[in-house]
Amino acid sequence: MPRNSTTTGGRYDDDDDRVWNCGAWFEYILVVVVSSILLIAASVLTIFWTIYYRKGFNMDDPKLQFNLHPVLMIGGYITLSGFSILLYRICRCCSHLIVKLCHTFFHACSIPCIVIGFMAVWDSHNQQQIPNFYSLHSWLGMITMGLFALQFVLGFFSFLILLCCENATYKFRSTMVPIHASFGVATFMLAIATAVTGLTQKAHFELGENYSQTVEEGIIMNSIGVILTGLGIIIPFAVRRSNSPANCKVYVTERI
Amino acid sequence: MPRNSTTTGGRYDDDDDRVWNCGAWFEYILVVVVSSILLIAASVLTIFWTIYYRKGFNMDDPKLQFNLHPVLMIGGYITLSGFSILLYRICRCCSHLIVKLCHTFFHACSIPCIVIGFMAVWDSHNQQQIPNFYSLHSWLGMITMGLFALQFVLGFFSFLILLCCENATYKFRSTMVPIHASFGVATFMLAIATAVTGLTQKAHFELGENYSQTVEEGIIMNSIGVILTGLGIIIPFAVRRSNSPANCKVYVTERI
Repeated sequence: MPRNSTTTGGRYDDDDDRVWNCGAWFEYILVVVVSSILLIAASVLTIFWTIYYRKGFNMDDPKLQFNLHPVLMIGGYITLSGFSILLYRICRCCSHLIVKLCHTFFHACSIPCIVIGFMAVWDSHNQQQIPNFYSLHSWLGMITMGLFALQFVLGFFSFLILLCCENATYKFRSTMVPIHASFGVATFMLAIATAVTGLTQKAHFELGENYSQTVEEGIIMNSIGVILTGLGIIIPFAVRRSNSPANCKVYVTERI
Repeated sequence: MPRNSTTTGGRYDDDDDRVWNCGAWFEYILVVVVSSILLIAASVLTIFWTIYYRKGFNMDDPKLQFNLHPVLMIGGYITLSGFSILLYRICRCCSHLIVKLCHTFFHACSIPCIVIGFMAVWDSHNQQQIPNFYSLHSWLGMITMGLFALQFVLGFFSFLILLCCENATYKFRSTMVPIHASFGVATFMLAIATAVTGLTQKAHFELGENYSQTVEEGIIMNSIGVILTGLGIIIPFAVRRSNSPANCKVYVTERI
């Protein structure tokens, strides 16, 4: 069955050869369900780890203040940003503007998480006189934050503000789409790399010799790392796949 | 200018709307050159790090025997496998069979690197009575090795042995292509995640407190990590991009 969506103003990239059969349905549901489960599992398991093994949160104790860092960073960079990216796969049949607004909303929600998550570790380190920005984790984290901020500002201006004068800015915005989408996936993958190095670092700091005795906490931390790596594979795969339910739009981003 | 390659037996996926203009040429050259530089830089910097800072290699000393591990793993999993994947972007105008054979050759070359690299750390740990398979690095490494072995066996049988009876096995092989390509990129990204956790672990083990004093060796190790993360972004991007030089084939794998 050929796809019968229309290429509205050249915004969508359409191919008659992309059919929506039983296998494609199965793949679509599998990818969306598995991605959603992993996105939620990453945050839930991190919250469980910090509360159960790391004694939860307390802003008056720098050690417990640190615990906000993994929870908010994984919540903001992975779960919220991940769902924000996945929206382009899930909400295929919604209006383009609604998908964009939801995408912006999810990313906007992740900003306070990232800012507070960063302040938590910065303040906690300073109080304990631990140096900042020396590790691979912090280097990758800085690059991720820079790219995320740039992406948000560029995305916000290109897609929402410039939408006010839609026709005049069409060419500029259509040039921005593949760049924004590529760097968006890159930022997500950078966040995953930052998170797994952070987990490894934390395991060695907190568990020390016990880490090599395969303690329960080590297994939980490794499991968070495996889930995050799984997300680093499935989310870019999900958003780049070119098939979609019949009668739905195929975004240019899928070609990237 | 419409692309004028032919869809030989449905093996290639062709679109008239994919044009090869000045911008596409620039992007093609940029991606290929940057990817190649990063792939070589990752191995060169790792060799430099192990020889200059970690006293090189010696099979009689378990500490120096360990040094084979990062060099061979990054050489095998990243540089050789990376070039093997990148071939599908570089050798667009070569015969499909030649690209496949070169792809198999590069991957075959990476196998001894991976096996010796694994044996080096296994033997080194056992001699020093350090436990194995407890860290996130080792967990991710095991998943990567399993996926790599499965990929090699499936790829080898599907694409080379079954080529003997080309027509009879066409449908099976064409089903295998997207699966093989997806899991290939996934294995590469898993290898990157494994490498950055390994580098973080090694930095904490070997440098200890000095790591936080931003020592020279720490900067070199962090730089290797940044290069590897860059590769984890640019290689999947390079192999998935749908544009290619005029008159050249566009492989189905680019749609994945």
